[in-house]
Amino acid sequence: MKKIFFAMPGNEELTDALAQKESAEKGMLEMRKFPDGETYLRILSSVKNKKAILVCTLHQPDSKLLAVYFLAKTAKELGAKSICLIAPYLSYMRQDTVFNPGESLTSTYFAMLISGFADSLITIDPHLHRRKSLSEIYSIPTKVAHAANHISAWIKYNIANPLLIGPDAESEQWVSEVANNANAPYIILTKIRHGDRAVEVSIPHFDRYKDHIPVLVDDIISTGRTMIETIAHLKTAGMNPPICIGVHAVFASNAFQEIKDAGAAKIITCNTIPHESNRIDISDLLID
Amino acid sequence: MKKIFFAMPGNEELTDALAQKESAEKGMLEMRKFPDGETYLRILSSVKNKKAILVCTLHQPDSKLLAVYFLAKTAKELGAKSICLIAPYLSYMRQDTVFNPGESLTSTYFAMLISGFADSLITIDPHLHRRKSLSEIYSIPTKVAHAANHISAWIKYNIANPLLIGPDAESEQWVSEVANNANAPYIILTKIRHGDRAVEVSIPHFDRYKDHIPVLVDDIISTGRTMIETIAHLKTAGMNPPICIGVHAVFASNAFQEIKDAGAAKIITCNTIPHESNRIDISDLLID
Repeated sequence: MKKIFFAMPGNEELTDALAQKESAEKGMLEMRKFPDGETYLRILSSVKNKKAILVCTLHQPDSKLLAVYFLAKTAKELGAKSICLIAPYLSYMRQDTVFNPGESLTSTYFAMLISGFADSLITIDPHLHRRKSLSEIYSIPTKVAHAANHISAWIKYNIANPLLIGPDAESEQWVSEVANNANAPYIILTKIRHGDRAVEVSIPHFDRYKDHIPVLVDDIISTGRTMIETIAHLKTAGMNPPICIGVHAVFASNAFQEIKDAGAAKIITCNTIPHESNRIDISDLLID
Repeated sequence: MKKIFFAMPGNEELTDALAQKESAEKGMLEMRKFPDGETYLRILSSVKNKKAILVCTLHQPDSKLLAVYFLAKTAKELGAKSICLIAPYLSYMRQDTVFNPGESLTSTYFAMLISGFADSLITIDPHLHRRKSLSEIYSIPTKVAHAANHISAWIKYNIANPLLIGPDAESEQWVSEVANNANAPYIILTKIRHGDRAVEVSIPHFDRYKDHIPVLVDDIISTGRTMIETIAHLKTAGMNPPICIGVHAVFASNAFQEIKDAGAAKIITCNTIPHESNRIDISDLLID
């Protein structure tokens, strides 16, 4: 089946790369806001009997979803055989359980909504915490790709003497994989609690790694709190300024500047969300 | 069935009035944005076996709809028997036909989305142009109320010597109804085209109405273009500064100030959308 790629606003660069890699057509859209805030949308390319691939990364999702929905419905109305949503960053993954009675299980409802208008979904490193697979909430076929190898490769070719840092025990699995593929050592920080408040962070064997470049890796950089705290611990221990790497450059409010100010040597992200820190190209992971 | 009213952010005043008029419970919500822009929602009141009535006027709809959807799904999950959406202003009514090939029929898709999570809908003066009834696009029961009598009453009690003005032939039905109920005269402006561009506007019998207060009435005031043009024609004819009345205070960008600057004596709206110009209370029209 012929494919046609459509870029939602802000996703043009990635969409161009994908269409080129697949030697597929890039669809033309007219999309604008009416003065009253409603969306106007017109598909200018023929989609009849094609697989329409909508590229829309979903950070700040609330204001984006209606337009994606309109695009999917319109493409179907115009004869598209199927709709594939490529959302390099998939939002609403964190409210994955009801912590307090009455809470909205937004991850499930969001998945139901998308499953209602898309026929398939491709994403990168969704924040699966309590859930094992997207299929627990998405009723459509999903493909999940992982950025770990791309991050390892970037570290290998750009950092002379890297030391991967896991901020806590939970991160070990992910950090060890990235470290192994980069042929780099890693350490996991351990928190030792003294009473209710005082927390001491122990950096194992830090003397051995004095000359290494610490590398912090996380899936989402949102408020950056964990990274900022870890940078402070490394600084206290007298280690080099670290390089901070995230898959998804969410950067809530002023987080990017705050991580810089905290003492990061560099902040590096994958291009799942367009941002000035994007250095690791993951577009080949999104090829179906 | 017991009713419970929930106010979406910005709809608190109207919701309080409705709950009071119906002697019904006002539901408690916790709703906020996470730093990454996702919505957190928690229903703090019991909705089990009740009819949950969600009050959310839908101007600037793109950023609002996901939260309403989450609220509806959560209330159902918590045992609400049915979900009624009160949207005093209903958006996405204007793209009601495909003017150019490939255009998104957003009115239909928006209606399908709402019909998917709400069990009924109540609104005021939706912009029905090419369609006769909401049931052509909404698959759930809908109740449509009209603000005309409230506007007539307001005119009757607040303007000593009113003259209703219809900006064009299309407006006659609506303007004549408001005028008759207000025991006021009305005139309809007629445009006379000279060639391609020059348009002369004729104000019939304007000498007879020199001492009247012109009153312009429309359903939606969005960009305000029609009102601003009409104000200019009245000024040229030497009539008094008009009072401008709208049902829905959409006021795209700077429209409110621009209508004032054009020479409106007053701008008055119904409280379907909270705005400083709200003077006409339509809350009793929303009682089921």
